[in-house]
Amino acid sequence: MKKLHVRTPSHECMVDITAQVQSAVSEAGITEGICHLFVLHTTAALAINENADPTVRTDILNALAKVVPWQDDYDHAEGNSAAHIKASLFGQDHSVIVEGGKILLGTWQGIFLAEFDGPRTRQVLLKVVS
Amino acid sequence: MKKLHVRTPSHECMVDITAQVQSAVSEAGITEGICHLFVLHTTAALAINENADPTVRTDILNALAKVVPWQDDYDHAEGNSAAHIKASLFGQDHSVIVEGGKILLGTWQGIFLAEFDGPRTRQVLLKVVS
Amino acid sequence: MKKLHVRTPSHECMVDITAQVQSAVSEAGITEGICHLFVLHTTAALAINENADPTVRTDILNALAKVVPWQDDYDHAEGNSAAHIKASLFGQDHSVIVEGGKILLGTWQGIFLAEFDGPRTRQVLLKVVS
Repeated sequence: MKKLHVRTPSHECMVDITAQVQSAVSEAGITEGICHLFVLHTTAALAINENADPTVRTDILNALAKVVPWQDDYDHAEGNSAAHIKASLFGQDHSVIVEGGKILLGTWQGIFLAEFDGPRTRQVLLKVVS
Repeated sequence: MKKLHVRTPSHECMVDITAQVQSAVSEAGITEGICHLFVLHTTAALAINENADPTVRTDILNALAKVVPWQDDYDHAEGNSAAHIKASLFGQDHSVIVEGGKILLGTWQGIFLAEFDGPRTRQVLLKVVS
Repeated sequence: MKKLHVRTPSHECMVDITAQVQSAVSEAGITEGICHLFVLHTTAALAINENADPTVRTDILNALAKVVPWQDDYDHAEGNSAAHIKASLFGQDHSVIVEGGKILLGTWQGIFLAEFDGPRTRQVLLKVVS
């Protein structure tokens, strides 16, 4: 198992961690299996989405902000309930298939750490099972 | 494989099943691997979110109820379409990494059965793969 | 590993792929383990939901269309940002438990390819790990 550290530069952002994930899979030395990813936080998540046009990511974050407004009738005193809700909508755990030592993604897919209450340094566990 | 039974006490709630999951993993006797969880229902789901302040869970449920109102122009005669939609937003299947016989969660993370059309007794399949 | 091809007949729809998944698991010859599914696209996803009354699927798609409108203040020039957002809400990767050569689903559950920007032919990777 490995732990990736991901620095998120702003309050809400999607950080491409595809290369970090591929490096960790290569280091693990397992050429065929499943790569499990797990975010150790409750106000961040993982998403697999377009890695080409960056406006896709800003559109995603803006749309989520409309669906789950930052300010609302929330009871949680910390004031970041919207981030908790978004985190569960996207999910903390995702897995990708590994073949020939490579994670298998579609042409336009990248793996992103979705930050909903940054900036912070986030931890993502990675384990490859053969 | 094991089957967990979870009694949900109200129409919408999030029941902490972290201890039940850890017990089942310990009984399985696999110390390193992946613990797969799968809810056998279409109006309940799993979520990994904050286990400390209970207002996070009520904020999550209230926000979801605004996003997907219980009453709307639904066609499904059973009247619980909102529950079906929320179930797919959170997802039926999640997995956590196991090391040293322990499920690896962040400091503030718990595993919850999210009930969207209770009260009921729900079934969660659990299988640990090494 | 196998690759399923799924023809989606309309712009937004949920295509039942349960039988295709079961066939591929049977062909893989692994009777006990985890079946991992992964959609190679950024405007389609997987969902596990009711396989009986088809109005559940139309209610799901209609509700999602209200939550994330097709037309909005999106920047992505391709005009399909709503599909990208829905894809991450449902998720590209799901996994089901296999026992006795069968995928284990609840009585009312089916596995669906959720198309958010069709019609297209979509690709779903499937890998069974024992």
